Amino acid sequence: MGLITELTVKLHGQPEAIRAAVCAFDDIDGAVNAVIATIQSGIPMARIEFVDRASAAYFNKATQAGWPDAPHLMLEFHGSEQGVAEQADRFSEIATEFGGQGFRWAAKTEDRNALWAMRHNAYRTALQAYPGHTPITTDICVPISRLAEAVEETAAEIDASGIPGPIVGHVGDGNFHALLLPLAGDAAAWETAQKLAANMAERALRLGGTVSGEHGIGMGKVKYMAQEHGEGWAVMGAIKAALDPDGIMNPGKLLPGN
Amino acid sequence: MGLITELTVKLHGQPEAIRAAVCAFDDIDGAVNAVIATIQSGIPMARIEFVDRASAAYFNKATQAGWPDAPHLMLEFHGSEQGVAEQADRFSEIATEFGGQGFRWAAKTEDRNALWAMRHNAYRTALQAYPGHTPITTDICVPISRLAEAVEETAAEIDASGIPGPIVGHVGDGNFHALLLPLAGDAAAWETAQKLAANMAERALRLGGTVSGEHGIGMGKVKYMAQEHGEGWAVMGAIKAALDPDGIMNPGKLLPGN
Repeated sequence: MGLITELTVKLHGQPEAIRAAVCAFDDIDGAVNAVIATIQSGIPMARIEFVDRASAAYFNKATQAGWPDAPHLMLEFHGSEQGVAEQADRFSEIATEFGGQGFRWAAKTEDRNALWAMRHNAYRTALQAYPGHTPITTDICVPISRLAEAVEETAAEIDASGIPGPIVGHVGDGNFHALLLPLAGDAAAWETAQKLAANMAERALRLGGTVSGEHGIGMGKVKYMAQEHGEGWAVMGAIKAALDPDGIMNPGKLLPGN
Repeated sequence: MGLITELTVKLHGQPEAIRAAVCAFDDIDGAVNAVIATIQSGIPMARIEFVDRASAAYFNKATQAGWPDAPHLMLEFHGSEQGVAEQADRFSEIATEFGGQGFRWAAKTEDRNALWAMRHNAYRTALQAYPGHTPITTDICVPISRLAEAVEETAAEIDASGIPGPIVGHVGDGNFHALLLPLAGDAAAWETAQKLAANMAERALRLGGTVSGEHGIGMGKVKYMAQEHGEGWAVMGAIKAALDPDGIMNPGKLLPGN
């Protein structure tokens, strides 16, 4: 839709200290509510990611890492040595209140990378667990106060469908991803996966969220735009038309009309 | 130019602890470079304000507060008790390297308010110092790397003009304000003050900044828009025209054409 002709980059200083932390939970609800309580406590988190039980199981199977087959939160704290230690301690207290167990943390780069490996390899290890399945990835984003129900409803529906569908998420932003894995060539499974993805988008709208947090709208989700944006969608279209009167810049994506 | 029909408010938790700090400097250069070094060190500052020597002197005269007649930085740190204490200590070390003296801090609300009084009363105490003068306020914003020269050039030119013109600023953002005080009814002084304000705007553009950080463009600074935004100014105008084809929404402000 546009061309970037100039970029101004804002640099942030390298933090003096970085601490990564991992914690397992009995259920999704405990993990997500721990995130909400941590945010509400004003504890600054540089990263906070959710990994569901299935993703943990696939990673354990692929690597013999031996994490519990349970939902996990993975966090990173940036700041001074004293600051990150205090932040990690306070998160640990909050997580414990919400059923968090097996809290572990790491400061050195190689140890942090080992903790983060489950998240970084989630896509690859899920594909390894289902050779011959076709990945469909989709994401939604909801207000943080609705995140627990959004993830739980999605996980329950995926479980009931029989389609493998691990969930991971940038839960500090209310954003999460499902990796749906219908068997290649199974038309019914493909349809079921498409329906699961559509239901995620409609769930996001029902809960006051957006049909895509970061994967984008493109053509696939343009059908939700009128419902998501109301009259604002036509306003966006008018701005596009003013800048691209001939409709030559990425037509048919995101906006009404061209 | 528009109507706000819906607002989503992001709430931030009340910090567990707040610490205010004040420090005097020999010169503007030391104060501004201490800000830059603090930002580069990744020390999180909730607020950082610059108050020039003249503003300190007016405040001392109005209140007998007894601060040094010197440029000051005033800061606020938010976080845990331990975190804000550490941040204030580290800022103090950096400030000392740049000639900072008389570092003081406060944690209790009433003590913090006492430290901040010089900044909060800067406008009022400057007017009190010059009864019968007409205030002209203007602000510019420059990249933080150019802030020291922007403030110094501005202060030197104001000093040479004979017009009172204290400077205060939200220096963490590269933004500062001059309060020019020509004698009411003195046409030559009024012209000089207008010229000082115009030179500030041109200085901002020369240093890669913007002619107003927060006072806005309106009609008074619309003449700088073509230079500041180049071809982007016409693009902004096209967007405005798309949303307001009859030119009835705040015409003549900020944008080319209507």
